[in-house]
Amino acid sequence: MNGITGTDRPALRHDVRITDTTLRDGSHAMAHQFTETQVRDTVRALDRAGVEVIEVSHGDGVGGSSFNYGFSRTDEMALIAAARDEARQAMIAVLLVPGIGTADDLRRAHDAGARMVRVATHCTEADVSPQHFGVARELGMETVGFLMMAHRTPPEDLAKQARIMVDAGCQTVYVTDSAGALLMHEATARFEALLGEIGDEAWVGYHGHQNLSLGVANSVLAYEAGVRYIDGSLCALGAGSGNSPTEVLAAVFDRLGVDTGLDVGALLDAAEEVVRPYLRRWPKLDRNAIVQGWAGVYSSFLLHAERAGERYKVPTHEILRRCGELGYVGGQEDMIIDVAIQLAAEQER
Amino acid sequence: MNGITGTDRPALRHDVRITDTTLRDGSHAMAHQFTETQVRDTVRALDRAGVEVIEVSHGDGVGGSSFNYGFSRTDEMALIAAARDEARQAMIAVLLVPGIGTADDLRRAHDAGARMVRVATHCTEADVSPQHFGVARELGMETVGFLMMAHRTPPEDLAKQARIMVDAGCQTVYVTDSAGALLMHEATARFEALLGEIGDEAWVGYHGHQNLSLGVANSVLAYEAGVRYIDGSLCALGAGSGNSPTEVLAAVFDRLGVDTGLDVGALLDAAEEVVRPYLRRWPKLDRNAIVQGWAGVYSSFLLHAERAGERYKVPTHEILRRCGELGYVGGQEDMIIDVAIQLAAEQER
Repeated sequence: MNGITGTDRPALRHDVRITDTTLRDGSHAMAHQFTETQVRDTVRALDRAGVEVIEVSHGDGVGGSSFNYGFSRTDEMALIAAARDEARQAMIAVLLVPGIGTADDLRRAHDAGARMVRVATHCTEADVSPQHFGVARELGMETVGFLMMAHRTPPEDLAKQARIMVDAGCQTVYVTDSAGALLMHEATARFEALLGEIGDEAWVGYHGHQNLSLGVANSVLAYEAGVRYIDGSLCALGAGSGNSPTEVLAAVFDRLGVDTGLDVGALLDAAEEVVRPYLRRWPKLDRNAIVQGWAGVYSSFLLHAERAGERYKVPTHEILRRCGELGYVGGQEDMIIDVAIQLAAEQER
Repeated sequence: MNGITGTDRPALRHDVRITDTTLRDGSHAMAHQFTETQVRDTVRALDRAGVEVIEVSHGDGVGGSSFNYGFSRTDEMALIAAARDEARQAMIAVLLVPGIGTADDLRRAHDAGARMVRVATHCTEADVSPQHFGVARELGMETVGFLMMAHRTPPEDLAKQARIMVDAGCQTVYVTDSAGALLMHEATARFEALLGEIGDEAWVGYHGHQNLSLGVANSVLAYEAGVRYIDGSLCALGAGSGNSPTEVLAAVFDRLGVDTGLDVGALLDAAEEVVRPYLRRWPKLDRNAIVQGWAGVYSSFLLHAERAGERYKVPTHEILRRCGELGYVGGQEDMIIDVAIQLAAEQER
């Protein structure tokens, strides 16, 4: 792919590189209503606290502002430019989900000041990413691959997907636990598989969610396994139950003696004084969030499962678990009825 | 002590015994304003979901209702009796902090229906507990010891304190991480030390808080080490950043294939439909909470440290860390100024 390989991964300034995604994953929790002032204040605080990479874009990545995914209040290119304007040492990153964002969106983000792209695909669909890594490398951007819903495929298969990304010019591949569903041993198995497959050429990353309250623990295990890129967001601001909180990651790595380059006090202040005032609601571990992590299914399945459970007299959570086992993804909500009927028949026997 | 030893620990019905402390540790978060209806509804839901032990008392234990610790809205003996009334299979437990609660309080709690007492001391002061274990055993109650602020003493010393409790008739000793300050390896070291010292005679327990977002992870490590009593509370309702959420513990152990006897769906419903409606605020990882876990100091130190930091031009978080290293406890707030002066002098050199 363009003759580019991933062997030219960037040198690291510290033991681990924390990327903050308050202004991207947090955009979901803000219903994509970030103002330029909020973005400027947040970037300034993160940059001063030593955060090296700050992700800014619509929650669903560049080009996400739409009827389907929710319109951004402020044009994301203006937000990226504002972020670039405030950052003294930090690099501005954008997310790009192929099919939502395009190569043109990426070029515009680069023009606005983004210097890293994180190309996100479902954990089994890395093959839609190569062209975007090609464009990014031509633009001279740092490249990161996101293998989303990473609990949905075994470690060795996930590693093969990471291989596709690295061969296409990706410098860091993330185990992306979109549903916050990875137990500690499951996360570790994936870190080790990726490190075994691409660890000599590229970095491995971890992006955690809090659905089972394991994001921070998995980040520690990630570091211990050899993962060097780790994501967080201030006040855990992110989709669903939120991300691993950046300020907690900083505190925990500080206590472990791991050099992140982060100023813990400054991050605690940034969370409390910059982000907290604009929070719409503090990310929380409510039933929807926990079900997503527990059953490994989209939280939107819950309501459907409750209805089917009532109708066919089977427990809601058994329906959800079965859906998780069967690997149903968003769009397959009609299968929930079939699962309920099947479970009812099993109860009968 | 009364010729009783801890070798008669109770048989367990499941792989691990989850104790729910929503109605005791959560009393802090409710400013001790629980109503009898709230207690009845919560006990009924927990009992039906299979929770074996339900703790009910003032946040600071029996006798805590006072000017110093905050008055209870409802007499706690009435709440214990109501809890006992609702429980079909669960045992009702009370907390007793020697110096706050007395042997008389314990007898009254027993009369009201409590069948387990959890005697809590600072991690280095187990020697104030024996008389209470003696009274409890005479009453025929199950006995648990709580070694609070367990991060404050090395594993081998904590084990010696556990030995004091077991020799006095305590059947289970908890590693009680009151500040949520234990990192995963620190928690594991304490579990192993206690199991080595008392594991042949008594059970070991773990009570986690979420200040560093590690309560659930440490619970998993606890189980793997051999700990068999684990605490949680619904919606994490508890002091500061809250406890390990019971419903998340249930979901995680279910995913791990560990038999808790709990109905995950019923617990998710209990959290969402019984507790959430009466929450005053969802427990959160704010600056106060994180500082407590990070520096291992009481969160009330924060404001003092901020003032001292401003006055002597040293970072607040460095003051807090030093206070943590020096092991200052509540009541030693005047030492914060000395720490700030010392740090300023070090900066000078």
